[in-house]
Parts: sequence; C-alpha cells; structure tokens
Amino acid sequence: MALFKDNTALGKTSWVFSAGFAPSQSTGHEPEFTSRNTLCLLNTSQKDACVQLMVYYDDADPVGPYEILVEANRVKHQRINDLIEPQAVYLDKPYGLVLESDQPVVAQLYYLDSREGQLTVSHLNPAPLGD
Amino acid sequence: MALFKDNTALGKTSWVFSAGFAPSQSTGHEPEFTSRNTLCLLNTSQKDACVQLMVYYDDADPVGPYEILVEANRVKHQRINDLIEPQAVYLDKPYGLVLESDQPVVAQLYYLDSREGQLTVSHLNPAPLGD
Amino acid sequence: MALFKDNTALGKTSWVFSAGFAPSQSTGHEPEFTSRNTLCLLNTSQKDACVQLMVYYDDADPVGPYEILVEANRVKHQRINDLIEPQAVYLDKPYGLVLESDQPVVAQLYYLDSREGQLTVSHLNPAPLGD
Amino acid sequence: MALFKDNTALGKTSWVFSAGFAPSQSTGHEPEFTSRNTLCLLNTSQKDACVQLMVYYDDADPVGPYEILVEANRVKHQRINDLIEPQAVYLDKPYGLVLESDQPVVAQLYYLDSREGQLTVSHLNPAPLGD
Repeated sequence: MALFKDNTALGKTSWVFSAGFAPSQSTGHEPEFTSRNTLCLLNTSQKDACVQLMVYYDDADPVGPYEILVEANRVKHQRINDLIEPQAVYLDKPYGLVLESDQPVVAQLYYLDSREGQLTVSHLNPAPLGD
Repeated sequence: MALFKDNTALGKTSWVFSAGFAPSQSTGHEPEFTSRNTLCLLNTSQKDACVQLMVYYDDADPVGPYEILVEANRVKHQRINDLIEPQAVYLDKPYGLVLESDQPVVAQLYYLDSREGQLTVSHLNPAPLGD
Repeated sequence: MALFKDNTALGKTSWVFSAGFAPSQSTGHEPEFTSRNTLCLLNTSQKDACVQLMVYYDDADPVGPYEILVEANRVKHQRINDLIEPQAVYLDKPYGLVLESDQPVVAQLYYLDSREGQLTVSHLNPAPLGD
Repeated sequence: MALFKDNTALGKTSWVFSAGFAPSQSTGHEPEFTSRNTLCLLNTSQKDACVQLMVYYDDADPVGPYEILVEANRVKHQRINDLIEPQAVYLDKPYGLVLESDQPVVAQLYYLDSREGQLTVSHLNPAPLGD
C-alpha cells in the first residue's frame, strides 16, 4: 500500500509568529547549547523555496527581508541569530516574524534556553490563522 | 524578488487562551527570571491596535477589559502581571484570557517558571478555533 | 470603546489530544509540584457546561465518560489524575483524550514534570482539526 | 446524558511537522529518560489505521515510508528512534515528518531532552494547515 500518491506540496506561503525572543546568555558547549530561536522549515515541493522573513520589533521599524533558501524535498533548521543580512537580529529583545515563501512550506519555531546552567526547550507553531 | 507586496494586516481580532497561570515564586534576577505569563502581540497593520483583554477565573466573575496598545508595525510582549488596571491579575490562580482587538493581531503566550532554582519555558498558541 | 459587544460563547464542543501522559514520580512539595497533566477549560458562555471526557489507552478499551462541570463565565483547570470516576486515569501510561461538551468551550493541556529533582512545564493545544 | 452519540473518527489523514530533532546524548535511566521525539497517535475510528511516515532531512533525500499500525480505539506513542525500517532515523540531525494514514488520526509530537543532567519536555502540534 502506498499512501503517498502524488507530489502535492504541503504547507502555506505565509506564516506568522509573535513570540520571538532569544537570550544573549548561554551555558554549556556551543553551538548545541547556545540559547536561540530556530526556524524549522520543511519544503515538500519539487521546487526550491525562497523564503523571505520580516522581523518586527517593539521600538523600531520592521527589518528585512531576510532570505532563506530551502531546497526541494528538504528540511532546513535556520537559527534566527545566524541571519545577519540586512542586519543581525537582536538578542534580548522581543520580536515577531512574518514569513512569505514562493512555494508552500511548513514553519515551526524551536526555542532553546541555557541561561544560568539550566536547559529548557520549547516548540511553537505559527499562529492558527485558518485559510 | 519581493514577496511582501501589500500591507495586509495578518491575524485576527479575537483570540482565546484557557491555560493562564503564573506562579508567585521565582528564583534568579528580576525581571528576566521572574516567573510569568507574557502575552506576545504582533500588529502588522498600518494602524495602532487597541487590544482589550478579559480575564476569567475559577471562582469569580471575569475582570476587565484591560487595555493594551500595540502600535502599527510593532510587536509588544506584555507581561500579564504588569496589568493592574482595573485590578492586578492574580498569581497562583488559574485564569483564561479572551482578547478582542480593533485591528487584526497575532497573539501567542510565553510562560517562564523559575521556581525552586529551576528554569522552564513554554510557548502556547491560542485555541485553534478556525474561522 | 467597548469591543466586547455580545455574549457569544467562544470555543467548540469537541476537542482531541493524543499526547496524554503523566509520570508517577515527582519531587518537591505537593500539590504544586506534583507531576501531572491538567486540562484547562474555559467556558465563556452564559450557561454551565457539562464536559465529558473519554480516555484512550494503548492496550485497553477507552474508559469514560468522565464528567467535568465548568460553570458559566469561569475557567476550570482540572488535573487529569484527580478524575477517579468511573476509574482513575493511569499514570506512566500513554493516553489520548476526546472531549465533548454541551456548550462551546476552549481546552488546552498543561504538563508539569518534576521527576529527578527537575522542573519542566509544557503547554499543548488540541489537534488543529479546522471546522 | 450521553454526548458521545456516534462513532465518528476524529482527525485527519495527513499531518506535517518541520521541527523534528532528537539529541543522541541522554542522562538518567533508560528508557524513560532517553532523549527523544515521540509521535503520539490516536485512532478513534473502528478500524485499525495504517500510518505511513516520510522523514525529510537537510542533506539527503526523504526516507520512507515507515509503517506504524494504530489499532482501532487505541492511542500509540511511537518513539521516532525506534523506527528502523527502512533505515534508522538519524540522531543529532534536523528532520521533518510527513504522515499519511488510511484512517483519520490525531498526531502530536512529544520531545524529551535529558542532556547534561537536565530534563526538559515540550509538546508540538502539527502545522495548522486548515482544511
């Protein structure tokens, strides 16, 4: 039995998160224990996806677009704080993320916090906006 | 290539959470390690959003509305326990949140718990009510 | 400005979780640090809600319904392991939850794990089934 | 009063996660404290469900399908790293999951991380794709 009959691209071309935040402090080995937000992107389509990201702050205009390439049939876990063009995303500051893609993708957020000799991980879906 | 073609406001004008709770106990430096619920609001519209919040308890009538201003093109991470008008939100008690906004916004909840020398963080979307 | 114009009951009458699990081991003071799953229910309607819960296991038939009363305009955070009628919910075993309510309610799951002198908290929405 | 009137199968036949990751390092007793991703499946239908899973990587073609049987009226919590046919799922590497089922099921992801003498748990819903 083969349930995967077609090559439908799963996902949507727009996703939004309001709870972005990454602490500057970390404990433990880098890079695996560095405190961070990681944007987890999955492209099940047969075409590479160009994902663009706008970052919203609480005291300045939105910055972007940041560009992230997600190859066809691949996942990409992109640390937000490795995004430096057009400008490094601030640590220790609240931010929101708006993502637009030219192919349907799935986006989820991974949070790791290793401040004070601790370790906590959390996962977050984009806002459930319906269709 | 510019994927952000228009100024559509992303989000909805109503959101609901049933899992509100903030412990009164904390360890570590304030305010970054204070146990809390933080409401993470993103306003991608071109108009300031007036967000109103009702807080539901398990043993008393709902309290509110609390008013939170989220400027156009900004994110705002509002600690629930900094809301004191009309009345401080109770610590150590279960609560639910109903949010209404005059502009579409995205709302997500951030939970930090630093009781007993520990650190744990969790994120929560509003209930997936569809449209 | 009053955004809360009507008394619409927010929520749905059916919710499903597949990731139920509560460890039997705990450390720290009871009951606040007892490892648990807590079902967080919000009833914004003007009528009391009768919530019924079926618990699904991996090696036995579903058990229930468990009945939970959520009063009008109230939240109720119900520890799953305080449900003993018709039968205590098992610890240390995977379970799923299907909830039916006679009024629309919002349901979210809170998980606290204090095994081994640790503390971790996570929140979970019901499955995003759309409408 | 019986709210559970029919035998409707709750869920959907397709679910997607982009944030898969399991560390190879663990501390504490096995298997309960082994770092892992666990796929939590609930089948409320009256027929056994055959679930098929494709695993997407960031540097190789998708692998699968993995087959998971979920009996009628049962939950099944399947550790991803116990899936070894056609090939063990990699530890310490990002992955995405696409699930197809021949019966409607509910799928949620459980993450436990016990690296460095710590314990953190997180839960994640599949992407909110609407219908």
